Amino acid sequence: MPARTPLDADIILAATEEILRRHGPDKATVVDVARALGVSHAAVYKHFASKQALREAVTRRWLDRTRDTLAVIAADRAVPPAQRLRAWLHAVLAGKQAKIREAPELFAAYGILAAAHSTVATDHVADLLGQLTAIIADGAADGGFRTGDAEATARAVFHATVRFHHLAHAGEWQNPGIDTDLDDVCSLLLEGLQAPASP
Amino acid sequence: MPARTPLDADIILAATEEILRRHGPDKATVVDVARALGVSHAAVYKHFASKQALREAVTRRWLDRTRDTLAVIAADRAVPPAQRLRAWLHAVLAGKQAKIREAPELFAAYGILAAAHSTVATDHVADLLGQLTAIIADGAADGGFRTGDAEATARAVFHATVRFHHLAHAGEWQNPGIDTDLDDVCSLLLEGLQAPASP
Repeated sequence: MPARTPLDADIILAATEEILRRHGPDKATVVDVARALGVSHAAVYKHFASKQALREAVTRRWLDRTRDTLAVIAADRAVPPAQRLRAWLHAVLAGKQAKIREAPELFAAYGILAAAHSTVATDHVADLLGQLTAIIADGAADGGFRTGDAEATARAVFHATVRFHHLAHAGEWQNPGIDTDLDDVCSLLLEGLQAPASP
Repeated sequence: MPARTPLDADIILAATEEILRRHGPDKATVVDVARALGVSHAAVYKHFASKQALREAVTRRWLDRTRDTLAVIAADRAVPPAQRLRAWLHAVLAGKQAKIREAPELFAAYGILAAAHSTVATDHVADLLGQLTAIIADGAADGGFRTGDAEATARAVFHATVRFHHLAHAGEWQNPGIDTDLDDVCSLLLEGLQAPASP
């Protein structure tokens, strides 16, 4: 029972990510990961029941890596909701820009996995939408934002900022004007959110 | 000099599109098009100096197919700018949805060509941005929209509606809720455009 280094899910996922970085998504299988760790397939299967489960877990871990930073921004009630909304949207973009800069090949590999494992991507979006809804609900509660349905408004804001967070637009995130572009969209959306009832 | 059917650019482009529809972008070459028309390569080269020129022209024709319909909506001063902006954005989406519905394989082929010939795509976007700027300038002139720079505002509106016109999101355009989603984004943007100066 006692092993030299106890094999846990974290060790397996770190090894899987290293394989993704070096060889892309095709080689990210239980067999390859077990070989890289020098353990039996069975040992890895004990933590991840299938190739599918392993790939979902590693993708989820990657997508959620910036989630806590974002959650802190979303929940920081010391910052007025309008300012918080803008900061949060910029942080979403900055997190993705950093991921590309640090490891472009890993970003590409995860892009393929996120597209293939749509439940993981859907959960990630739901999580981000929850954070956005919380900011907008705070703005509605303090009277700064005019909305009867924070969740619907959060969806509209999320859809209106797709260019700044959807992987399909990753090629545009290194454009020199991208932060200004996001700022302009934020300003327009905030004007809409903060508008008094129209005549 | 007189031929049985005079070969013109339109005939060549129609034949090129037929090849795209049946075989995809790889076969859309001067040689293949000449063969399909039963003419010499030289006859086609007289109209399109290279494979590149032929592909750009056919892509431009496809991208611009709905442009006149959109231009009419953009220029219709009988319709108030706010209503016109919403109608125009819906027409952009509807035009693309119709293209997919009518010929999905052609849509895919043109998507590849548009990505490969970025000047054509850039010109198309510039044309759409010009129409959008005209609507917004009309709204600024009649006092309905508050903007000092119609072109910058048009860019922000275009960026905020990327999900509803960028080819990367084509897979989402058949979602049952897509028109409502666009409507919600339009409403938020219009609230922002129509807002009185914020306190």
